[in-house]
Amino acid sequence: MSAGNPVSTGRLLGVGVGPGDPELMTLKAMRALGEADVIAFFAKAGHPSHSRAIASRHLRAEVTELPLYYPVTTELPKCSAGYRDIIRDFYDRAAAEIAKHLGAGRVVAVICEGDPLFYGSYMHLHVRLTPRFTTEIVAGVTGMSGCWSAAGLPIAQGDDVFTVLPATLPEGELTRRLADADAAVVMKVGRHLPKLRRALSRSGRLARAIYVERGTMANAKMIPLAAKLDDDAPYFAVVLVPGWERRPGVKT
Amino acid sequence: MSAGNPVSTGRLLGVGVGPGDPELMTLKAMRALGEADVIAFFAKAGHPSHSRAIASRHLRAEVTELPLYYPVTTELPKCSAGYRDIIRDFYDRAAAEIAKHLGAGRVVAVICEGDPLFYGSYMHLHVRLTPRFTTEIVAGVTGMSGCWSAAGLPIAQGDDVFTVLPATLPEGELTRRLADADAAVVMKVGRHLPKLRRALSRSGRLARAIYVERGTMANAKMIPLAAKLDDDAPYFAVVLVPGWERRPGVKT
Repeated sequence: MSAGNPVSTGRLLGVGVGPGDPELMTLKAMRALGEADVIAFFAKAGHPSHSRAIASRHLRAEVTELPLYYPVTTELPKCSAGYRDIIRDFYDRAAAEIAKHLGAGRVVAVICEGDPLFYGSYMHLHVRLTPRFTTEIVAGVTGMSGCWSAAGLPIAQGDDVFTVLPATLPEGELTRRLADADAAVVMKVGRHLPKLRRALSRSGRLARAIYVERGTMANAKMIPLAAKLDDDAPYFAVVLVPGWERRPGVKT
Repeated sequence: MSAGNPVSTGRLLGVGVGPGDPELMTLKAMRALGEADVIAFFAKAGHPSHSRAIASRHLRAEVTELPLYYPVTTELPKCSAGYRDIIRDFYDRAAAEIAKHLGAGRVVAVICEGDPLFYGSYMHLHVRLTPRFTTEIVAGVTGMSGCWSAAGLPIAQGDDVFTVLPATLPEGELTRRLADADAAVVMKVGRHLPKLRRALSRSGRLARAIYVERGTMANAKMIPLAAKLDDDAPYFAVVLVPGWERRPGVKT
């Protein structure tokens, strides 16, 4: 619970709904959805929202829905000032829309895949709204927990150093960081898979690496990366590199 | 779902019950507890089990309880061969007890604080039992998610590199790794707090560090580490170092 300097009785709830399987939602998330006057969620224009789909069976019939459609900015490179301005304005406007409801005393739940404060778009709303409104975060099961659980893969144990890396890093940087960690999760794989494969090989981690697509969906795909013959990968694919190499206590 | 080469109809469930708040359990964990003939849980002899307390309201009246008491080994240094033997034998015996129930066709749920495959004792049972029995993992909200959510603290965003470090690492190693990550969680703080404080200071991270005790309990304690005047800390205290320094898109 992070209470700022509230100017209204409205409450902002950042609600993690977990990695995809609707059963991996928490009881607290379910209760938060039952309390919400308004639910807000991010989505690509023309695509259904994942987080709304996960939460759908728990929404009140009379709830107000506030979809927040990411602006289409494929015509601009991600690092350009133009892109950054468009994204900043989008989050400013989204926060302003939510603030209107909060100012009117309503409870607004922003539903988030995974955990709200771990690589979530919700964070952009959080930093804009918490100074003015009472806020509560409902922690969620992360996408990566969903992946290694679905794979039945112990990821880190004891004094393991565990690292989350974006596949967007340069190859040398990826190689160094993979070699430096006992266990790792690499996110945003997509078109970076050939580079990631080389970094895993050079860091001695390729044999342990598991490729995961649609982690906790019914049609999940999980194979040792070394056995994956092509380099086709969606943006949200992840690669798991389990640690716990010594496996203390197991007789082998 | 990781199916080995099952020799019985028994099923092993590794059930994450979340970081402490019973409401942070998932619907799937609740269902798994309702299916279990036997629940097993780790505990210190003479102390109530945290995971059992979290799960208590969802247990069936007729469930068989199998507490697994850690051996008392305070007389041996943790790195000694004697300690390792005692711990290995403990996990071997615990796995054998569970195997008896599984062999008799029962559903055994091992309830775990946080997430079963992320630094959990359950993993020692998992590696011993999955080759012989059908196993299913129910992912849980991790202790660290519970902490940063309770603190309302955005931890990592965008292309941040996020790292989990044990405070047991040597000071130079801690310093180097803290400086090398955008965001970090340091676990097992306890008596290592003075060393950790120096490592945070030398890596330029002290001003951002938040000290958390009993993360998701009603009596949680969270303060900036720089404002904590003593170096008293329990073993399970954590220090959060939030990333997302650039906070893209926020007008400041």
